[in-house]
Amino acid sequence: MVEKRTPLAVADAVQKVMEHKLEGQQEFVSIFDSCDRFLSEDLKADHDVPRFDRSAYDGYAVKSEDLADCSKENPLRLKVIDEIGAGYVCNKSVGRFEAVRIMTGAMLPPDCDAVVMLEDVIEASTLDDKHITISKPVLKGENLSFKGEDVQAGAVLVKKGTKINPGIVALLATFGYEQVPVAKKPIIGVFATGSELLEVHEELEEGKIRNSNAYMVMAQIKQAGAEAVYFGKLADVLDESYQAMKKAMDTVDILLTTGGVSVGDYDLLPDIYRKLGAEVLFNKIAMRPGSVTTVAVLDGKLLFGLSGNPSACFVGFELYARPIIRTMLFSEKPHLTTASAILKEDFPTTNAFTRFIRSRAVLADGVLYTGPSGTDKSSIVSSIANANALTILPGGINGFKKGEQVQVILLDDSANTY
Amino acid sequence: MVEKRTPLAVADAVQKVMEHKLEGQQEFVSIFDSCDRFLSEDLKADHDVPRFDRSAYDGYAVKSEDLADCSKENPLRLKVIDEIGAGYVCNKSVGRFEAVRIMTGAMLPPDCDAVVMLEDVIEASTLDDKHITISKPVLKGENLSFKGEDVQAGAVLVKKGTKINPGIVALLATFGYEQVPVAKKPIIGVFATGSELLEVHEELEEGKIRNSNAYMVMAQIKQAGAEAVYFGKLADVLDESYQAMKKAMDTVDILLTTGGVSVGDYDLLPDIYRKLGAEVLFNKIAMRPGSVTTVAVLDGKLLFGLSGNPSACFVGFELYARPIIRTMLFSEKPHLTTASAILKEDFPTTNAFTRFIRSRAVLADGVLYTGPSGTDKSSIVSSIANANALTILPGGINGFKKGEQVQVILLDDSANTY
Repeated sequence: MVEKRTPLAVADAVQKVMEHKLEGQQEFVSIFDSCDRFLSEDLKADHDVPRFDRSAYDGYAVKSEDLADCSKENPLRLKVIDEIGAGYVCNKSVGRFEAVRIMTGAMLPPDCDAVVMLEDVIEASTLDDKHITISKPVLKGENLSFKGEDVQAGAVLVKKGTKINPGIVALLATFGYEQVPVAKKPIIGVFATGSELLEVHEELEEGKIRNSNAYMVMAQIKQAGAEAVYFGKLADVLDESYQAMKKAMDTVDILLTTGGVSVGDYDLLPDIYRKLGAEVLFNKIAMRPGSVTTVAVLDGKLLFGLSGNPSACFVGFELYARPIIRTMLFSEKPHLTTASAILKEDFPTTNAFTRFIRSRAVLADGVLYTGPSGTDKSSIVSSIANANALTILPGGINGFKKGEQVQVILLDDSANTY
Repeated sequence: MVEKRTPLAVADAVQKVMEHKLEGQQEFVSIFDSCDRFLSEDLKADHDVPRFDRSAYDGYAVKSEDLADCSKENPLRLKVIDEIGAGYVCNKSVGRFEAVRIMTGAMLPPDCDAVVMLEDVIEASTLDDKHITISKPVLKGENLSFKGEDVQAGAVLVKKGTKINPGIVALLATFGYEQVPVAKKPIIGVFATGSELLEVHEELEEGKIRNSNAYMVMAQIKQAGAEAVYFGKLADVLDESYQAMKKAMDTVDILLTTGGVSVGDYDLLPDIYRKLGAEVLFNKIAMRPGSVTTVAVLDGKLLFGLSGNPSACFVGFELYARPIIRTMLFSEKPHLTTASAILKEDFPTTNAFTRFIRSRAVLADGVLYTGPSGTDKSSIVSSIANANALTILPGGINGFKKGEQVQVILLDDSANTY
């Protein structure tokens, strides 16, 4: 007897999962290890950048009023009274018709209000006397970087939950974050199911295939920003599997399984969820691939029962597990980005369920196009490797034509492919 | 006296660097650690996937000819002679009007040519007799996954130099790559220069700023796929700096410095290059920011002299150092992707040099737009953190208008922002 399951709409399934989102935690890591982690606090400026008016070029700090009337015909001679490298400060007072040699980044002497670039002066020195000649005026403030022009003290520069990139690392360094507050990586346990599965190191046997889902999902977990723990394969025996999952639940935030969630005689997950006392949020979604994707809750932790079909497993993870992980990393936008794109091929067939086609999105002349990245069948592995997007084809519509505008979900690890 | 330098066009500078590209090396890593590494060999299928015709669903394996005439009015009764789970093989021969219970993924018995889905049969059993009743025909090949339909033996699935994503991990697992051949991460040494610089853990002092470039560049190195080694700050003393760099060169593939490459009195790098006997490929590029970016060659290794201005440093790395690293990772497309985009703002000013504006590119309704991510000044740090692209504004053109099409370079770490 086949159990009848009522399919849930994708958006409703996503919402149901997100109602059970988990709290993230904070830890501190060295700034050297902070790139690609997620900020657990807003990055706030505790001082202006620059902290002082400084020279933007190598040259001479001057009083602009001294230069007001100078010209080629009427060059001006200034006495050089000091020289300041970047990091040093001029302690002399600068009088009328005096100048200070200044390097890029050095603090402007308080008596000066502009810098003349090195290229625009003629230097002349005797043993105990240094002069420059200038033949064009300079505006007040010229060739300076002003206090606070980059960042003002108190400003929130980067929001909590943002993934740290090299530019953010530069800001962290600027504001003295030797230790950076980041989201702790959630621990995600992974079990594979299926007696047809061999591990990657095992020799092939007739009727068997190598387990690819668990390795794929662990890579997806890593890219989502969490840490994967592999528990190996569940035996096809209910009690043993139940014990293994029960034990694993104690050590992880989220437990993922691949396979075993369908309605077949060998699909143990429904029975294990029952035995664990987990509340099944749904076990049928109106989507292809991945309609059997199951999510359950137990003691405030989540169990994801992903399909054993590679493409279905992949899509199920990206739609339902990834946003939970990103929420634990404090992201305000935990879901993958959706964009409009033009279909590059016809999709003549109709399906009652929403389809997520493994796709290759390409920018051509500033416009985004999308087409399948390989054969569109849930059992296919090869189309995932080449995908950088999932094309969404809503269910119940009588086929889609090349040139139509559709929505695509942009996958995370594919920046360099557009 | 200011040294006169002749600016090189950006494309020529890139070409000059690439003429000195370095060879990559191979190492093996566990499949668990392979995601985000770069393949050092083509990934080739050593067997078909699937390796055998298998059932795509739970159901019954049958001979389609037996079902040819069955209908609701004329249901057909088949004897069930065996049951095979995924991973198991049917060793019985299947005669006319016999069927085999089969699970998703299990190998089709050689005597059968189709599968009837579980939903489409009525099961009836007595103690020693199992039957099913079917009331509609099935086509030969229906509900099967065919041998080789996913991947054919001998096919190159993923090219050498490709960054490994979760889908590729699935393929690696399928083909038994317990150890994965990947490009060894190049070792990139980093020195900061500038006596104005304080390290991230140091208290601020008057006239000084915290070193942000070195930390930023180390994050860029990491994201490019290499390993960064920080050697700290170079003293402002020629001989000491020369010794430190000479020693560092022995332990790295590439040596990066930030700052000190301009023509000022405190810019030591030109003298250090001379003393090292390095061949300077160029020391002036017709670009803003980063015109002082210098590249030199010594004993088959590369020295990158990046600007001390954060934005200039960032751009210099992405344009010149990144492609060298990616080449060492066997990439056939080592440069960042360029795309067309629509300007969201006017850029009224003209510059003789090509400008690379730190930008935010956004897809809206399938079209790519670009606008500055902050103040456009080479000394600015904050605009880098928010950038996911560099807008290219060619030099010598009389300003650019909102709505014009321009080229943008898409930065790598920003996939989720489009």
